[in-house]
Amino acid sequence: MAEVVSFKKDGASETIGALVTADLADGILRLTLNNPPANVLSIALMETLSAELDRAGADRQVRVVIIAAAGKLFSAGHDLKEMTAHRDDADRGRAFFERTMRLCAALMLKITHLPKPVIAEIDGLATAAGCQLVASCDLAICTDTSAFCTPGVNIGLFCSTPMVAVSRAAHRKQAMEMLLTGETIDASTAKDFGLVNRIVPKQYLTQVVNKYASVIAGKSPLTLKIGKEAFYRQIDMPLEEAYDYAASVMVENMLARDAEEGIGAFLEKRHPEWKGE
Amino acid sequence: MAEVVSFKKDGASETIGALVTADLADGILRLTLNNPPANVLSIALMETLSAELDRAGADRQVRVVIIAAAGKLFSAGHDLKEMTAHRDDADRGRAFFERTMRLCAALMLKITHLPKPVIAEIDGLATAAGCQLVASCDLAICTDTSAFCTPGVNIGLFCSTPMVAVSRAAHRKQAMEMLLTGETIDASTAKDFGLVNRIVPKQYLTQVVNKYASVIAGKSPLTLKIGKEAFYRQIDMPLEEAYDYAASVMVENMLARDAEEGIGAFLEKRHPEWKGE
Amino acid sequence: MAEVVSFKKDGASETIGALVTADLADGILRLTLNNPPANVLSIALMETLSAELDRAGADRQVRVVIIAAAGKLFSAGHDLKEMTAHRDDADRGRAFFERTMRLCAALMLKITHLPKPVIAEIDGLATAAGCQLVASCDLAICTDTSAFCTPGVNIGLFCSTPMVAVSRAAHRKQAMEMLLTGETIDASTAKDFGLVNRIVPKQYLTQVVNKYASVIAGKSPLTLKIGKEAFYRQIDMPLEEAYDYAASVMVENMLARDAEEGIGAFLEKRHPEWKGE
Repeated sequence: MAEVVSFKKDGASETIGALVTADLADGILRLTLNNPPANVLSIALMETLSAELDRAGADRQVRVVIIAAAGKLFSAGHDLKEMTAHRDDADRGRAFFERTMRLCAALMLKITHLPKPVIAEIDGLATAAGCQLVASCDLAICTDTSAFCTPGVNIGLFCSTPMVAVSRAAHRKQAMEMLLTGETIDASTAKDFGLVNRIVPKQYLTQVVNKYASVIAGKSPLTLKIGKEAFYRQIDMPLEEAYDYAASVMVENMLARDAEEGIGAFLEKRHPEWKGE
Repeated sequence: MAEVVSFKKDGASETIGALVTADLADGILRLTLNNPPANVLSIALMETLSAELDRAGADRQVRVVIIAAAGKLFSAGHDLKEMTAHRDDADRGRAFFERTMRLCAALMLKITHLPKPVIAEIDGLATAAGCQLVASCDLAICTDTSAFCTPGVNIGLFCSTPMVAVSRAAHRKQAMEMLLTGETIDASTAKDFGLVNRIVPKQYLTQVVNKYASVIAGKSPLTLKIGKEAFYRQIDMPLEEAYDYAASVMVENMLARDAEEGIGAFLEKRHPEWKGE
Repeated sequence: MAEVVSFKKDGASETIGALVTADLADGILRLTLNNPPANVLSIALMETLSAELDRAGADRQVRVVIIAAAGKLFSAGHDLKEMTAHRDDADRGRAFFERTMRLCAALMLKITHLPKPVIAEIDGLATAAGCQLVASCDLAICTDTSAFCTPGVNIGLFCSTPMVAVSRAAHRKQAMEMLLTGETIDASTAKDFGLVNRIVPKQYLTQVVNKYASVIAGKSPLTLKIGKEAFYRQIDMPLEEAYDYAASVMVENMLARDAEEGIGAFLEKRHPEWKGE
């Protein structure tokens, strides 16, 4: 476990088991997948990460969440050994597979529904559900040596839940290429595809991600909550319904104290003081 | 108001108040936001632009609409001073904010529903609802020094209506980056994101936009109307329904006189004469 | 017909009429549009291609389908002469146009619903319904001298069915640019737009497409069937519904023999033996 990088910092910090480490500093919660070498999304890891996200959602101190990973891989996706072991169950594993897939889908939706922005910080390979995790985060920043794939097709198990996130982040043909061929794409291609926002050299990764997180943490938490929720709700609506909904959201947002403060500060050329209400 | 550029030309031309100028030449209606320096989308400007679009929709002489802007900025979005003034209303501004947001959403939908193509011509910064206006036009052409942002998050007011247009023009993560960070993206990034179609040097902007408008104005107005309406209707349908609908549209289009004329002219290698029916 | 290239190979091979040639080798079915010089999608060609796809869907030997074209053009779309001839019908052609458009829409949907991946191999111009055919295939690989357009607007007949496929492959503004201007875009622009996956020099086209097909043909046919069907179903669902559906798909996929074999082979570092069940 020599490769496990510790992100401990000053400020409130806590380690939850060995599977996910959590470090809070300046409103930024860094959750680090800590299941090297492959950071597989075992039931235990998914449950831990899920609990951490619940906690992050409820903790007013947390303004932005970073999901990073210890070791040389970001995540290799589901734990195939764990799943295979359950083939000996009386139901040939059905109940366990059901539990795994439901937990995984719920985890990804939890990121979408979290009232705080989530940034994926990737250095290394993100495959299958690991790639889905990247695609499910609001933003993703990776090193230039990172790579991405949905290789389930190679082992007879199509990456059907990853495709939900990947096909919503990228164009169809590009998502299909990843899914049908199982090929690994490099960081630059992933950026072209829309899977990641920015590519940075390895030595700057954490610094750049922290900067993005810090910029976002400086916004009104209420405004971020309103906006993120509205984004994912409106995108699944037809255009007219989306405008109707978004217009209502903006009216309520305008009446919130933080908008009054923010606009007032802007017009008065001073720094706003967010109250989160 | 020294920066106000006049686009007056030969042919029918009219100036509607100071807020939007309208110039019609060769079937191309150029509407110029004329509220410098920031061309804010005040109630008055939105109502004027909306009325102009209604008029353009009804006027058979108008085949294509260009939305441009006078001065160094394309548009800075809503009029924050106007909105802030209404915080002293008995309802803390709710009715006014409601009116503003409904008017804005209706204006953007009017562009989408206008039976004539609308091209945004951008030179300078387009922010918030100004960026939404760009994203809402059918096509957008900008100078290489133009820039775009949805910075509402910086002032506590998430760009929730702009997100409707921006998240439908760009990939999700890229739209999210603009919305969550409020950062300004340059013209090249905007083209990568899908927000604009073409980037041209400043000295060629009007010439290039006019050329695009002129090419489109040379098509059958009926065909453009059929096609534009079908585009926005089918894109919100599931695939099978979209094909069913589009196939019906094409049959009716085939039976229109302009298709008979256009196909006949093509097969006979002559120039078509559109009747718009 | 000197330009007609024959793709005959060793292995099962058959020529169906003159309109589409079919060559099967190593699980890869190459269907070649053989209606030069323009490979127009006449009723006869569409019916032949449709029948070939039905046959491919039912034939367990076929694992991947390539749609290529003989001659210098990929396809110029519908047969305008055929359609124009029917203007003399008692109903001014309505029944024939209806038949043409329904057949075309059904053909494109057949590609989407085929339980086997379909790759478009393009060398030359793909216009109107020809461009739609490219956009409708799961993957598309073209030469660097290929070009694409939806020029119906030039002849009074908006490319309304092609827009269904094109607007789902590309960003909106880019699709609109093609549709409203009728302009031809080069291979590089088509790749930027998301219409094609890869661009290769002419001398390598067939080799590269065959390599892609061969890689995909090496996967479990059942897994490809499950995955392709799930892809197009989930993409039209709201996010939560998509995840719910995709999670169910993965559970069933896990319980299939090929997943057990594939995962087992992966863990045991051996080559999987697919049974297709």
